[in-house]
Amino acid sequence: MKAKLPLSRIAVVLSRTSHPGNIGAAARAMKTMGLRDLVLVAPRHAPGAEAVALAAGAADVLEQARVLPTLAEALADRALAFGFSARGRDLSHPARDWRAAAPEAIAATGEGLVALVFGNETSGLSNDELLSCQRLVSIPADPGYPSLNLAAAVQVACYELSLAASAFRVPQRAPRALATGAELERLHARLREALLGSGYLDPAEPGRLDERMRRLAARLALETEEVAILHGMIASLARRQ
Amino acid sequence: MKAKLPLSRIAVVLSRTSHPGNIGAAARAMKTMGLRDLVLVAPRHAPGAEAVALAAGAADVLEQARVLPTLAEALADRALAFGFSARGRDLSHPARDWRAAAPEAIAATGEGLVALVFGNETSGLSNDELLSCQRLVSIPADPGYPSLNLAAAVQVACYELSLAASAFRVPQRAPRALATGAELERLHARLREALLGSGYLDPAEPGRLDERMRRLAARLALETEEVAILHGMIASLARRQ
Repeated sequence: MKAKLPLSRIAVVLSRTSHPGNIGAAARAMKTMGLRDLVLVAPRHAPGAEAVALAAGAADVLEQARVLPTLAEALADRALAFGFSARGRDLSHPARDWRAAAPEAIAATGEGLVALVFGNETSGLSNDELLSCQRLVSIPADPGYPSLNLAAAVQVACYELSLAASAFRVPQRAPRALATGAELERLHARLREALLGSGYLDPAEPGRLDERMRRLAARLALETEEVAILHGMIASLARRQ
Repeated sequence: MKAKLPLSRIAVVLSRTSHPGNIGAAARAMKTMGLRDLVLVAPRHAPGAEAVALAAGAADVLEQARVLPTLAEALADRALAFGFSARGRDLSHPARDWRAAAPEAIAATGEGLVALVFGNETSGLSNDELLSCQRLVSIPADPGYPSLNLAAAVQVACYELSLAASAFRVPQRAPRALATGAELERLHARLREALLGSGYLDPAEPGRLDERMRRLAARLALETEEVAILHGMIASLARRQ
């Protein structure tokens, strides 16, 4: 649980959002990555049925969202605010790649509260809004079509944060039991014996078959159980000859 | 343009998608990250007006999408297919973190065509579908609510790919012209002189003000132009005394 603590100190602030559906989808995106604190600054419409539908299992995040009239109020208790922009070139201070900046956001939670700030769907963050943020960041995208949907940008932003915080791991299956060198040698010997018996392999001119089979087996990284299955298949095929 | 080549050899395959809107949103997510090749396997509804609306500026990706009846046909020309699953623990082969696996997808484009495969919104990829994929991957998410929206998962997947391919960079502003040591020394001297003149600084007991100002200036990484502005402000305030 300790790894999740930084994420609880980071709010997602959506400023002047036009479409309530995007607010719901953003809530869902946040919750999948362990973030819960959503702040809505002057949304055009209060989140209603459409937002709840798109929030899916994250309706709780939506319900607990704070709605505030100005960005200044949303950032009043924040020590560090990251403004997300797709613009970059025409801005007064340089944008950083969000992947490079995300660890700073996690580290800053040890010193204060943090915000990620996203602007209106069409126009993005205004210059005034960007000036309220101490950091300006961008998600690298195709310059020919850099327009991520608002909730998609929130998804990528929160994904990077959760990875920077090492919050979650992909669930692992029980470790595989790899075959040992001795088991593989017995398999190669068994295959060779069967192929000599069937006439596929000419003992006078064995060629490079053994080499190729060994290369193939090396790529496979066979498990002990799989070696046993192959033994059985070779034995069965050899019996039918 | 060379960096984009690997992405042109990677298709996104959506299997048995229920909601056409998700297909459109996935097309948009792909295009923002430089991917264009969309394959739809047995979608419940052919993408219509709703899909086009959610594709926004990526209607071309949607128009060029191939619709195929089976996953086998979608993967027929693919050398390597990555199946995305949120399940993990109950699967027969181990899932890898997509961030760790994405470089393998990029490298594989040098040897053949690649696919990223996503299942139905509700049920994900079936066991049979997963068995058609050579690799099983997951996006790390909160185990309490791991359900990324389909298009959000496509967005994160394509984002990782484009970063693994170093396809796009955040546009950089012209490099800043940082102030030199000599410029900073002149600023500190000017401030000290002004504060002695105003009586804020007692020459008999200067305390640690100079030290604090130097630490502050070090954090600021002032630009030459900013030093000039500060000089002007100090001069103006000193004149008013």
